[in-house]
Amino acid sequence: MPSIPKTSPATIGLIQHACPIDASASPNASPEKTRNHAIDMMRDAANQGATTIITQELFHLPYFCRREDDSLFDLAETIPGPTTDALCTTAKKLNVEISASLFEKRATGVYHNTTVFINPTGKIVGTYRKMHIPDDPSFYEKFYFTPGDPPTPPHVSPGVPDNHSGTDRAGWQNFNSSTSALKFGPLICWDQWFPEAARLTAMRGADVLLYPTAIGYLDGEPADEQQRQRDAWITMQRSHAIANGIYVAACNRVGREGELQFWGSSFIADPGGTIIAQASQTDEQILLAPIDPARIEATRRMWPFLRDRRIDAYSDLTKRLID
Amino acid sequence: MPSIPKTSPATIGLIQHACPIDASASPNASPEKTRNHAIDMMRDAANQGATTIITQELFHLPYFCRREDDSLFDLAETIPGPTTDALCTTAKKLNVEISASLFEKRATGVYHNTTVFINPTGKIVGTYRKMHIPDDPSFYEKFYFTPGDPPTPPHVSPGVPDNHSGTDRAGWQNFNSSTSALKFGPLICWDQWFPEAARLTAMRGADVLLYPTAIGYLDGEPADEQQRQRDAWITMQRSHAIANGIYVAACNRVGREGELQFWGSSFIADPGGTIIAQASQTDEQILLAPIDPARIEATRRMWPFLRDRRIDAYSDLTKRLID
Repeated sequence: MPSIPKTSPATIGLIQHACPIDASASPNASPEKTRNHAIDMMRDAANQGATTIITQELFHLPYFCRREDDSLFDLAETIPGPTTDALCTTAKKLNVEISASLFEKRATGVYHNTTVFINPTGKIVGTYRKMHIPDDPSFYEKFYFTPGDPPTPPHVSPGVPDNHSGTDRAGWQNFNSSTSALKFGPLICWDQWFPEAARLTAMRGADVLLYPTAIGYLDGEPADEQQRQRDAWITMQRSHAIANGIYVAACNRVGREGELQFWGSSFIADPGGTIIAQASQTDEQILLAPIDPARIEATRRMWPFLRDRRIDAYSDLTKRLID
Repeated sequence: MPSIPKTSPATIGLIQHACPIDASASPNASPEKTRNHAIDMMRDAANQGATTIITQELFHLPYFCRREDDSLFDLAETIPGPTTDALCTTAKKLNVEISASLFEKRATGVYHNTTVFINPTGKIVGTYRKMHIPDDPSFYEKFYFTPGDPPTPPHVSPGVPDNHSGTDRAGWQNFNSSTSALKFGPLICWDQWFPEAARLTAMRGADVLLYPTAIGYLDGEPADEQQRQRDAWITMQRSHAIANGIYVAACNRVGREGELQFWGSSFIADPGGTIIAQASQTDEQILLAPIDPARIEATRRMWPFLRDRRIDAYSDLTKRLID
């Protein structure tokens, strides 16, 4: 894995790994062990130049939504809690930001699929609770997750080095002169199929859409249908980059869990929708890519879709169907 | 070109051709000659099994928006007018539907980029006026086109053969038992970059999104950027198929007009986003594909995105940005 120089405005690092469920086959087969393994990978990512580290969805847990079981609510943690404590310590130690996806116990009987954003001082500076909740065989998420509220303001990153300035930065300063920070727009997995979620988050000023994900092949589906699904997953998220002139980072897990073979393939797309980094379908991997706000400005000047939205004609989008 | 049997529920035929501007180089270099050439292609498409024929954008005119020139408003026609008269005659003669994209003179000083939908009796049964209007070098459309109103109800096609019924049709009947007709959702070119337009049209019950288009490579742009643009154009429209579980048909012109080399590549994607037919980048071509409403039902049952839209959280989509 080549190291990316720190001279780029920011470098995100995706942490793609397995969440083993068979202790006889893996030394990481418990939530705590998987968490420690992920933290080891975060250290490696920081050493390779990552300034913002992104986890996969429910990063240290087996994908427990494969069945509906009351007892599995015990896997949830409060925020703050043991896992965010460990991640806050890690962020401070490595001097990085961390965006981590967790199973949150918010209140008695109220659980969410939640992203926390931690800054380099080790402080939680934002949360996002998954808005769109799937439910289909082997993905029984409506049983576990209360739907989240509308997108929060993007998490502001202080990760842009102070020494980055000059002509290639001018456009960005014009676009949002109040801050030189990057803004990360948190979304989660099933949200990725909804252009509305991407648009709202871009409209709030995000530079990068983050999609921690747990998606894979379901045993028994034909191979060509499996490949179609993976291709659609990539196509859909690339379309959010294109439609909004924005970076997109999707981080998915790998490995087999029961009837599911998670397909990895974590990737980062630039504001033109071009994939600038992509991980393996099967292997654990740290995936790095630079984020340059000047490219957002340049892309949106060339294809100014945000200029031409017909906001006078969009009110029916709040309906189910138009009869 | 293989003929597709009429036993499929409907077969759409895209008419991809050039609009020559140099009379010394082409026998079709006038709007009337190009129109007659397109009508010849429509006859061939019907002979090959097409039940609904789709033109490219401003199908018989040079892409006049390459410059701003008052005199070019003379190219516009009323609806009905000579071109729709010719197309209505053609539709009746061939016993097909025609969706045709025209430069419409609606009133003194009010011009639109308009699709008309003509049924097999030769009657105009619907119009759609382009909602999202681009404007960038060599594509000065804001000078010519008044923005259209929000999407109209889809044009209902009687094109589903009466003899098509049985088990593979049951799902569709459940989805919309009031009609057995296909519904075509008209959109035009720049609309294709706006997920809002696709969504609204799908919400109105369309089975197929139609995108007549005039898009090409601009001289002087690097080759890799040209290919990125074409790839983004395909990706974006495939994403509308995926997000809405709907067919998408995009019909683009070919040929050089001044500094523009139109890239053809007309295609039809199925409700899973898979391209089921695609035309050349350079040659005139009739592109046929079957449309089966049962596939929409099956796709939406598997990936029920329309079930999970968070309409309680989408009201900000009618804003420019969220500050």
